[in-house]
Amino acid sequence: MDLTSTLAGIRPLDADAMAAARARQASLTKPPGSLGELEELGVRLAGLAGQCPPPVPEHPAVAVFAGDHGVYAQGVTPWPQEVTVQMVANFLAGGAVINVFARQTGADVVVVDVGVAGDLAPHPALRPHKVRRGTRDLAVGAALTRDEAVTAIEIGIATAIELVDAGADCLLTGDMGIANTTPAAALVAAFTRTAPAQVTGRGTGIDDETLARKTAVVEAAVGRLRPAADPVDILAEVGGLEHAALAGFVLGGALRRVPVILDGVIAGSGALAAAALHADVAGVLVAGHRSAEPGGRVALEHLGLSPLLDLGLRLGEGSGAALAQPLVAAAARVLRDVATFDSAGVANK
Amino acid sequence: MDLTSTLAGIRPLDADAMAAARARQASLTKPPGSLGELEELGVRLAGLAGQCPPPVPEHPAVAVFAGDHGVYAQGVTPWPQEVTVQMVANFLAGGAVINVFARQTGADVVVVDVGVAGDLAPHPALRPHKVRRGTRDLAVGAALTRDEAVTAIEIGIATAIELVDAGADCLLTGDMGIANTTPAAALVAAFTRTAPAQVTGRGTGIDDETLARKTAVVEAAVGRLRPAADPVDILAEVGGLEHAALAGFVLGGALRRVPVILDGVIAGSGALAAAALHADVAGVLVAGHRSAEPGGRVALEHLGLSPLLDLGLRLGEGSGAALAQPLVAAAARVLRDVATFDSAGVANK
Repeated sequence: MDLTSTLAGIRPLDADAMAAARARQASLTKPPGSLGELEELGVRLAGLAGQCPPPVPEHPAVAVFAGDHGVYAQGVTPWPQEVTVQMVANFLAGGAVINVFARQTGADVVVVDVGVAGDLAPHPALRPHKVRRGTRDLAVGAALTRDEAVTAIEIGIATAIELVDAGADCLLTGDMGIANTTPAAALVAAFTRTAPAQVTGRGTGIDDETLARKTAVVEAAVGRLRPAADPVDILAEVGGLEHAALAGFVLGGALRRVPVILDGVIAGSGALAAAALHADVAGVLVAGHRSAEPGGRVALEHLGLSPLLDLGLRLGEGSGAALAQPLVAAAARVLRDVATFDSAGVANK
Repeated sequence: MDLTSTLAGIRPLDADAMAAARARQASLTKPPGSLGELEELGVRLAGLAGQCPPPVPEHPAVAVFAGDHGVYAQGVTPWPQEVTVQMVANFLAGGAVINVFARQTGADVVVVDVGVAGDLAPHPALRPHKVRRGTRDLAVGAALTRDEAVTAIEIGIATAIELVDAGADCLLTGDMGIANTTPAAALVAAFTRTAPAQVTGRGTGIDDETLARKTAVVEAAVGRLRPAADPVDILAEVGGLEHAALAGFVLGGALRRVPVILDGVIAGSGALAAAALHADVAGVLVAGHRSAEPGGRVALEHLGLSPLLDLGLRLGEGSGAALAQPLVAAAARVLRDVATFDSAGVANK
């Protein structure tokens, strides 16, 4: 589905279902509020599904959007660029952390090539949708054209719709791309109007000199943005293909009304773009964890999301989203399965 | 097994297995440290098992220790005391939150009556080990005799051993007892030498007046403790039967070398007693979550534990431990299942 039609189809959370869920929380055999943040998460799941109790998400799917980055040429990471191709092969072979966590929580993993610089052999779990072989260098000019950014967004939308229509009831964001925390930092800075130095982090682990170079690159890129830039302009100028695709993935989840569990800073930056494109996107989002990356934290605060986990994760791949998935299922399960004071014959205070 | 023999059998974590686990973490296809706190948790699991990779805990068991409290007479809670019996029935019928969370994570639930005031009908999942019908009122004197406290500890030890010998590879602490946050606060104050006002909380939800009364009760009880009181004296004077049993449950887990995932403040107070009884207990403990109860937080800090979840939970029953269990399994799974840079053909930086 194209971006315009997708945006036209997104609706807010269902207020009646949320009210029913709040009333049900108060009737269950537990002190009111004693499940903390899971209670309001359950209410949101009801609002998303339009029914109380909401369905329990038991068939999650992870989409790992993979791309490369022209800004790699600026020396913003110590990892060789070919690691993107190598890690995609690792995902497809089932050996990466995201595969291990996805198996534990019963999630399927698909890899979407939106812009890997190298060639990838066909594989049943690989969706070959290369928009281009890596972005242009955002340090010296726009990373993408508007058309390329829209194409990547629409790949994300189509991926979400395909997964949900095939049975997924919960979408988990994944990403892979050497140097992709640099465009993520730029996107977070642009969408939240935060100083680049506050949102640029050490990614997979860089020294002070590299961090200073990375921050300068982000500052220069964000500084080029026109005041009138719309969300697609921002994605094109300073973003990346996987970031744009993740924005679309979030929009597709919102259209299909399934929870989208965000992983770290790459997902957070894509979600900021999606939320800038449609005001009702935030309701669909669940923050899987608070990334060790500063931009991830700023993105969540801007989106008004409280993370389910805070374990100092900074891997990406969707790992933090997969770890959080059982908590989302548990929040729904409470509303569906816990006995009420009346049904269990328990005295209320 | 009796307390003395149990204490004599507890050994420290295996340093060789931990060193092997740290080396393995560095060889896996992820940036070093990128899994944050899960990496050191995996190392500890290896040290506990004495092998790397450690076994993945896939057969967790929750023991919900239930008891009543003489201090109920002081008006420290708005809930009727018969709720303890009613909630035990709810656990046995499978309708409580802990049942719902345990089913999701594949955990068995047993309920151990160590001191419920009322009568409980026989049930296959109920272990009838009533030490007495509720404790004495700790506001006016010792809650238990030393013999009663030791009996409760040994029930906890036996429960842990029985569950592990029946196949459990991970123990989750559970508790039920109207008014049991009052003795928990007293235990935390005593074992951590913290002012009662800093560790006494609102439990299931009490108003300011009740909180002031509860705090005064805790202050009076802790004030009676002799400077030379040993951990069993403290459990007897200001504790509860489920708190003592949980201390024993932790010791039994340490003896059998399986991870023990702590739920909230009741478990934390029991774990403090266990750690005071044996210096090598802390290695076996995993903090499931940071309770909304202030005493829970103080207990974890004293034990040197970083909680896996921080969701504002304050239910008890073992709910926070059950929610955290998949994270413990994931930490072990990383060491067992993730490909190495060499095996996956991924370049290291």
